[in-house]
Amino acid sequence: MATFTHQTPQTHFLSRLPLRAKPRHFSARVKMSLQESAPSLAVVGVTGAVGQEFLSVLSDRDFPYSSIKMLASKRSAGKRVAFDGHEYTVEELTADSFNGVDIALFSAGGSISKEFGPLAAEKGTIVVDNSSAFRMVDGVPLVIPEVNPEAMKGIKVGMGKGALIANPNCSTIICLMAVTPLHHHAKVKRMVVSTYQAASGAGAAAMEELVQQTREVLEGKPPTCNIFGQQYAFNLFSHNAPILDNGYNEEEMKLVKETRKIWNDTEVKVTATCIRVPVMRAHAESVNLQFENPLDEHVISISRLG
Amino acid sequence: MATFTHQTPQTHFLSRLPLRAKPRHFSARVKMSLQESAPSLAVVGVTGAVGQEFLSVLSDRDFPYSSIKMLASKRSAGKRVAFDGHEYTVEELTADSFNGVDIALFSAGGSISKEFGPLAAEKGTIVVDNSSAFRMVDGVPLVIPEVNPEAMKGIKVGMGKGALIANPNCSTIICLMAVTPLHHHAKVKRMVVSTYQAASGAGAAAMEELVQQTREVLEGKPPTCNIFGQQYAFNLFSHNAPILDNGYNEEEMKLVKETRKIWNDTEVKVTATCIRVPVMRAHAESVNLQFENPLDEHVISISRLG
Repeated sequence: MATFTHQTPQTHFLSRLPLRAKPRHFSARVKMSLQESAPSLAVVGVTGAVGQEFLSVLSDRDFPYSSIKMLASKRSAGKRVAFDGHEYTVEELTADSFNGVDIALFSAGGSISKEFGPLAAEKGTIVVDNSSAFRMVDGVPLVIPEVNPEAMKGIKVGMGKGALIANPNCSTIICLMAVTPLHHHAKVKRMVVSTYQAASGAGAAAMEELVQQTREVLEGKPPTCNIFGQQYAFNLFSHNAPILDNGYNEEEMKLVKETRKIWNDTEVKVTATCIRVPVMRAHAESVNLQFENPLDEHVISISRLG
Repeated sequence: MATFTHQTPQTHFLSRLPLRAKPRHFSARVKMSLQESAPSLAVVGVTGAVGQEFLSVLSDRDFPYSSIKMLASKRSAGKRVAFDGHEYTVEELTADSFNGVDIALFSAGGSISKEFGPLAAEKGTIVVDNSSAFRMVDGVPLVIPEVNPEAMKGIKVGMGKGALIANPNCSTIICLMAVTPLHHHAKVKRMVVSTYQAASGAGAAAMEELVQQTREVLEGKPPTCNIFGQQYAFNLFSHNAPILDNGYNEEEMKLVKETRKIWNDTEVKVTATCIRVPVMRAHAESVNLQFENPLDEHVISISRLG
């Protein structure tokens, strides 16, 4: 069985080359998300590509909150950020940032997560971390909410008890969102993944460089190569993660290890080839699956309806 | 085993966005390719992207020839084409074009091949056809010269006996160039291919449209979609070949069927996912292989040296 899975339709995002995704839907209803009884939030790395996505998703989903702190590095402190009809000033992330914060969404790189994540959790904050810092740490749930919510069942907001929750790598998430329902029906025994990864995964600066390089190449100029150290416009290359001793790059091994942790299955055979393609947003994957049991299409369609 | 194979280094071709590949090497030696005793040639579809590549390869390799006819549709007749230091006038392709022609290289689409290929072969011309018209026809050799030259062993130039020789699909060629040596050592039993296919495979007009669309998107304009009917700049999509009843597109099934014919192995399991990526030239592939016998790395390295 061969599957080609898109995270989101690319043409939607690319029609005018926005560096940020457009909101997924518009709503005329009154927003009820700012409520005194709701949890207090913090976004760490709010000026980055993922930080801005956090805000966009919180807003799109009317996520209830009583307050929200916009946190980033010293360099970005003082900047203004718009959210849900209000303007906020970005504050510098410090050891004191998490006092009274119920939920913190982290996406400021692994070293920031390692330094401030456990510190926030100790202060009673539930940390949802987008970096790879804690993904493979025993006892830290690695969660795709639609796939394995049970992994975080002991964690409750508003009990004053902090926790770390890790968010898998982007390639793992989109792969397992598509594959897990099939796995539950017929048990995957071997999975071969080839990715088509966009600039967005490398952050806002990489997206800007792709635009800049594309302009340069079209003008016959040598491309500026600050982020990847090579031409990305009209080109593709093996994912920029470090190459490991086994010949795979780190991005590829994340897909292997994270799948096994999320499925709680150390036996499943997974291999991946991760490639950057010159697309602004939205990763895509080609996934080939071999199953232990016959894949009964009738059962699957019933389960989709149910 | 996971392999990622490039047809040619892309940055080489893309540094200044040429619509034609640069010559592979330059030579200071005197060319001996124009010789009276050498075969007479014809290039059908000479104004297209592949036609131009034919000329480039003939020139790079000092292919010996006594004369060369530049053939194309009526629309292109009268155009001037430079080759090997001379200028030629493009002639309209007709039933009489092949009188006295020893070798004809065809790349003008399947319907032109079907109409004029057998006609040329009857007149004693050896036709090397780049289209899919005859690939799966019994008795027509499907040849990658580095892989299965024995398939055309009865065919000789200068005997006045015509023949049809089919050239496989581009994805099949680059895949089997990399995989066949491994197949000979350990026998491939299952092959999973995911492609990253450039604009060049769809011809010169597709490459021009990718440049045009990219400029338009960067300027915030809607992209011109004459070739693929959708946005290609900063996007990717399932290969534009027609979708078949089994859910695969035609390009994907070519890889399956052609591999079996070239390897003369009806048992080998092959599956492919073919994707167009916004790259000007040079296809790439991610290939996962399962072997019948253990893959002895020592044997392979000896064979490489031998």
